Amino acid sequence: MEKLRKIGFSKLTSVSEALEILFSHIKINPIEEVEINSSLNRVLAVDIMSGMDIPPFDRSAMDGYAIQAEDSFGASTKNPKEIKLVGTIEIGESSFLKLKKGEGIRISTGAPIPVGADSVVKIEDTEIENNLISLYISLPPGKNVSKKGEDINKGTQVLNKGTELKAEHIALLTSLGFKSIKVVTKPKVSVFSSGDELLEPGDILIPGKIYNSNTPMISALVHLYGGEVIRGETVKDDLNYIKKKLIEAAEDSQIIIFTGGTSVGTKDYLPEVIKESGVILTHGIAQRPGAPVLTGLLNESLVFCLPGTPVAAYVSFLKMAGVAIRGIMGCSLLDPRSEIIVEISRDVPVSGLGYLHHLRVDIKKSEDKLVAIPVKLKGSGVISSLTKSDGIVEIPPHQEGLKKGEKVIVKLFPR
Amino acid sequence: MEKLRKIGFSKLTSVSEALEILFSHIKINPIEEVEINSSLNRVLAVDIMSGMDIPPFDRSAMDGYAIQAEDSFGASTKNPKEIKLVGTIEIGESSFLKLKKGEGIRISTGAPIPVGADSVVKIEDTEIENNLISLYISLPPGKNVSKKGEDINKGTQVLNKGTELKAEHIALLTSLGFKSIKVVTKPKVSVFSSGDELLEPGDILIPGKIYNSNTPMISALVHLYGGEVIRGETVKDDLNYIKKKLIEAAEDSQIIIFTGGTSVGTKDYLPEVIKESGVILTHGIAQRPGAPVLTGLLNESLVFCLPGTPVAAYVSFLKMAGVAIRGIMGCSLLDPRSEIIVEISRDVPVSGLGYLHHLRVDIKKSEDKLVAIPVKLKGSGVISSLTKSDGIVEIPPHQEGLKKGEKVIVKLFPR
Repeated sequence: MEKLRKIGFSKLTSVSEALEILFSHIKINPIEEVEINSSLNRVLAVDIMSGMDIPPFDRSAMDGYAIQAEDSFGASTKNPKEIKLVGTIEIGESSFLKLKKGEGIRISTGAPIPVGADSVVKIEDTEIENNLISLYISLPPGKNVSKKGEDINKGTQVLNKGTELKAEHIALLTSLGFKSIKVVTKPKVSVFSSGDELLEPGDILIPGKIYNSNTPMISALVHLYGGEVIRGETVKDDLNYIKKKLIEAAEDSQIIIFTGGTSVGTKDYLPEVIKESGVILTHGIAQRPGAPVLTGLLNESLVFCLPGTPVAAYVSFLKMAGVAIRGIMGCSLLDPRSEIIVEISRDVPVSGLGYLHHLRVDIKKSEDKLVAIPVKLKGSGVISSLTKSDGIVEIPPHQEGLKKGEKVIVKLFPR
Repeated sequence: MEKLRKIGFSKLTSVSEALEILFSHIKINPIEEVEINSSLNRVLAVDIMSGMDIPPFDRSAMDGYAIQAEDSFGASTKNPKEIKLVGTIEIGESSFLKLKKGEGIRISTGAPIPVGADSVVKIEDTEIENNLISLYISLPPGKNVSKKGEDINKGTQVLNKGTELKAEHIALLTSLGFKSIKVVTKPKVSVFSSGDELLEPGDILIPGKIYNSNTPMISALVHLYGGEVIRGETVKDDLNYIKKKLIEAAEDSQIIIFTGGTSVGTKDYLPEVIKESGVILTHGIAQRPGAPVLTGLLNESLVFCLPGTPVAAYVSFLKMAGVAIRGIMGCSLLDPRSEIIVEISRDVPVSGLGYLHHLRVDIKKSEDKLVAIPVKLKGSGVISSLTKSDGIVEIPPHQEGLKKGEKVIVKLFPR
């Protein structure tokens, strides 16, 4: 550890502390109004109050006859009661029909209940002949009637700001008559990968080089997390060029994500560049993989330098850069990953106390439960350990690994 | 039941049987090639073999010195071993350096291991003075070396066709040098809502009318499931107009989804229209909510008529129309919902044996486990029962409800 301090990071910050520092620099983005049809996955910028009752009127929940329940009391298939058909109300109609004792009005599902009626008898519980309706069932008042405001009362807060809009929220908002909605603008994100070893897809593979998979991977994650990728590039390990690129990106990006060049290698120029042109917030995070993460500021832009190894870049994105993107959008759920609680299939020893460990696991069904099986891996460069996994178990710092059968929280990969 | 038969559906089909009939008419869409950067959420049309080893060469997993492990045997902080620095290999370099016994080569993470070296000692486990490297640790051969092909061997099948591409798959594909990829074209979907009671958002609310929330909700779901909405409209309950719209949509849509007008009410024209212009596959499904679902064919298009009540439309989409969209894309996972297994918080009696019941539940953390709490609701029109829920528990036909504490599978809402 003494040696590490000397040559490597002067200090490792915990993930939570790093996020706290980060969030003291995060401001929620301005509001924009979008059509409801374009609002999927956007984040509500305001609390939503209902301006109306849902349903807006007492309505029939069935196809049948609106009646006074009293007229059906005691009715059965053997002893039907008779009432008189006096009219019809279709769905969408505003009817002035009034119902009196001994009368029935044909009514469709969703149509407004006429004045005087208090219940609806299903059509299959009746027969009709010569405008005389036979009721085969006895109903309590209110049966098959959806009362005005039963679902939502006017003035109720129905959605909170910070909600990420999904299909069911869109349904709710449109049922309240919203045509457009106030959402938080998407954070603009620049994505860079640095490294002299990086080839672009389509290039011919030459010795010592590898294809750059980080820019497309991080760009996909930014998209999944709700950000807008405005720039995605690979840059060589050249101090001046990196500096130029960073300054350029800081002009139009709220977040800049670099992968590679952030550790303590001879060509790891990023810390130097950030220090010169901006501010380093944290450098060195107590997590594995992902220790070399650097966070900083360049003018108003948040800068994340993530490790170049794909798995370390992936988990560091989920844990830090992704959370920042959602912070800028004011999401109430900063980490959007679904969580499941399951048993771990075997002992997992941990080397390196003091680090938050991101354990990749595969979820399998075993009898009537799900279990998490740690995915065998050899290093944080092993991309196939991600495609073979379903999610991550976080082992907190100072916890000495996991015991077989222990309940663990699995954070499923973002989908 | 006799009455129901007389007036309602002549026969209720089980969900599984309806899906079977449906899938006998489903053909997987043609292939198209897309840039890897635009492939998020698309479905692989072909199996992917690796054309190369990953890593493509033996490479260093650490910043340090490439050495012969033997030279470090017995080394410790108290008893360091010394070797001679003979060169440097940077990442991205193809080096012709050869290493001999007693020598070390400075090497960066990701750089190729020189001929003659078998391990890498981390820089923090060494000190250097006048080109003499002191090793403070004893290493086994192979330490900190990622072997060629260790992650993926050339010729291995790495991804199967039918995989929905996420960030980690994109990383894997780009690391293999793919610039573009063969995916299945998106199904084109037309979405209609029918009903004289329906207002468009922005219209003034008048008595008897409600805002149409189904077209935006279903469109959002189609998008989440990977389809492309090419038409989204509200139509009046007019037989000829509905017919005209359906025939128009059948010309360019692979799937047509109608909500409303599919039951046995006086203005439920859809069954008649489909019967006249195409083929009804099934009408009446043994599920609650969602019994009125109709599936049919119109030329080559699959037609789904879903109930007009939003919750019934929602669950019927998930269970049937959504599955068909993914079937057309050749997805290996037809139902994309994440599943969790948890305990149910209370007894749930079921009325109506023979129906598949879709129970909406809220997931809450309780001590060290998650539990599913059934959401109280009054009808399938109650949209807020969706926004207050996290997912659905399916109670199979012929199962007499659920017992408190019983393990249930919750299918989380699509995200």
